[in-house]
Amino acid sequence: MAENENPIRFGIMGCAEIARKVSRAIHISPNAAVVAVASRSADKAKQFAVQNKLSPNVNLYGSYKELLDDPLVDAVYMPLPTSLHVKWAVMAAQKGKHLLLEKPTAVDVKVFDEMLDSCEANGVQFMDASMWYHHPRTGKMKELLSDPELFGRVRAIHSSSSYYGGPQFLENNIRVKPELDSLGALGDAGWYCIGAIMWTMNQKLPTTVTAIPTTVLNSSGVILTCTASLHWTAEEEEEQTVATFYCSFIAHETMGLSVCGSKGTLFVEDFIIPFEESCAGFRFSSGAKFVDMHVGWNSKPREIEVANEFPQEAMMIGEFSRLVKGVRDRGLRPDSTWARTSRVTQVVMDAVKSSIDGGYKAVYL
Amino acid sequence: MAENENPIRFGIMGCAEIARKVSRAIHISPNAAVVAVASRSADKAKQFAVQNKLSPNVNLYGSYKELLDDPLVDAVYMPLPTSLHVKWAVMAAQKGKHLLLEKPTAVDVKVFDEMLDSCEANGVQFMDASMWYHHPRTGKMKELLSDPELFGRVRAIHSSSSYYGGPQFLENNIRVKPELDSLGALGDAGWYCIGAIMWTMNQKLPTTVTAIPTTVLNSSGVILTCTASLHWTAEEEEEQTVATFYCSFIAHETMGLSVCGSKGTLFVEDFIIPFEESCAGFRFSSGAKFVDMHVGWNSKPREIEVANEFPQEAMMIGEFSRLVKGVRDRGLRPDSTWARTSRVTQVVMDAVKSSIDGGYKAVYL
Repeated sequence: MAENENPIRFGIMGCAEIARKVSRAIHISPNAAVVAVASRSADKAKQFAVQNKLSPNVNLYGSYKELLDDPLVDAVYMPLPTSLHVKWAVMAAQKGKHLLLEKPTAVDVKVFDEMLDSCEANGVQFMDASMWYHHPRTGKMKELLSDPELFGRVRAIHSSSSYYGGPQFLENNIRVKPELDSLGALGDAGWYCIGAIMWTMNQKLPTTVTAIPTTVLNSSGVILTCTASLHWTAEEEEEQTVATFYCSFIAHETMGLSVCGSKGTLFVEDFIIPFEESCAGFRFSSGAKFVDMHVGWNSKPREIEVANEFPQEAMMIGEFSRLVKGVRDRGLRPDSTWARTSRVTQVVMDAVKSSIDGGYKAVYL
Repeated sequence: MAENENPIRFGIMGCAEIARKVSRAIHISPNAAVVAVASRSADKAKQFAVQNKLSPNVNLYGSYKELLDDPLVDAVYMPLPTSLHVKWAVMAAQKGKHLLLEKPTAVDVKVFDEMLDSCEANGVQFMDASMWYHHPRTGKMKELLSDPELFGRVRAIHSSSSYYGGPQFLENNIRVKPELDSLGALGDAGWYCIGAIMWTMNQKLPTTVTAIPTTVLNSSGVILTCTASLHWTAEEEEEQTVATFYCSFIAHETMGLSVCGSKGTLFVEDFIIPFEESCAGFRFSSGAKFVDMHVGWNSKPREIEVANEFPQEAMMIGEFSRLVKGVRDRGLRPDSTWARTSRVTQVVMDAVKSSIDGGYKAVYL
């Protein structure tokens, strides 16, 4: 298949835990290949290559700069701590490397735009590494949510993303270090909640974003838990939409999204990482009513299962590589859809942070 | 069975739609019987008796007062519009009738306390007619939520209660008439959300209640949709709890409660009225973690099903009648547990209303 000839050659910049998963995804993906790995030390890069059974042909570097100078590398996957993104993302773009950037993309939208401007100026493709958008389940959910008869208008959304980091995580993980990932749980877990809410709303920015005064910070001021609401006003008052989300490093595993429309309801419990790798489900209900005397419902939510040939992270790599191929092999302009998606999430995340910092006032967008 | 000899004799005061369900529940319940029905007209009472196949021995009245004067009646079930509760509930108590009162109990806690004081002064049993507390599923859920190993501490709660009233409902139903049910969707659907949240928190009042500025009112100022947050502070900051809820008359059917703890998660989609009458389920997860490389979870939530011999409304009648029997036949004091539960829900509902009316400021309890 011509589509899979000359795969996109990835350099992995940083050997974070998540890089193992993405390395495997690149390996699985027919239109992509790992050709280089860089870490802050050559030893770490070597260790990563061994652990992940990479080909001996993969170039291993003890600095990120060396990888960016490797002419073999078409695109970089960058799982660095958030505060380091801008330096290396801008440099990657300047060196003509397409950019698959771990989330959260940046500490704020100003910094995000620096990276994006650099990508645009250098004609490279940008995508953030949120995997769930690429699962076929996500497309199936969108199909149902977009059906005016089955689902109607979006009234209320709730999302929850949490995990219990445990004492060692809360002490040492980069996600709770103010100099590395200053947004903490909002940047890590909250990124998905915001992303899912904005995905539901087709990336339409809310009128206001208001954090709820229940933020828990660690001793360095990094967010361990937060809650916020988003509000979309509408000309017809009835057509307003409200969303709330909860994200946390100190609660049991949740990855939930529930959407209540005027005519239907959707609920998914594992939208970020499906329970199982080869199939994922959700629950959908439409036109539910009570039976006579309200002693039951006329229907239960349907369980809808969507099988997937490739894991969602391989689908992400496939989609990114397809776009990069357009640029590299067919002279197309980079596709800006994914950059817009990331930017919208970043803008809302900034608004939540502003609301927290400003005493939980509403932030108007 | 001695327990079921001399059943509690109910008078049904008001022939609202919901009275059909409760009439059937009294019929099913072994320790209860319908002996009288009153409406604003004798014709309506007669029609109700025929429609619901009541025994010809049932006394039919064209006024509520006549029913309250019937010495045969031990207890009244009162599904009147909220604004009429206080007049008739106080009179019922004064006549020595035990009181099963439809929710929302009152327009505010001051009025609620008038009713409760009257019940206490006259030694009659009080209960509000929220049925779901009485389903055995509710007990099973509480058992799991109370397990420090399986569930841990409550971190976040979300509840949603909605249905699409439709044009005729939104125009004519008593639930949207300011002079009858001024609390609208907050009083009707929101009552359950607040009740479920407070049930989860073992009726411990939150530190603050804050409505989210997304209320939709009809032209008479009655709430059609609202959203609010509740917050419990804690000495150890990590142990805070946050709850959010959404209630609406203009959205698809939802009856959801999700509770995220430090070690477990519970989710139920039909907590107010189970999908089916003879069995009800929920989902529970504990100790969920990602498998290696985060390509799936170590476990999916368990589906837990609880069978019930009697519908939950009959269980409610059974519990109420058991308490009334204690008073009537054994000289016990009325049990105040259910009154406390109702009062806590009323206090929080008042706080939500105050927050809305006060420009969405936090209300401290």
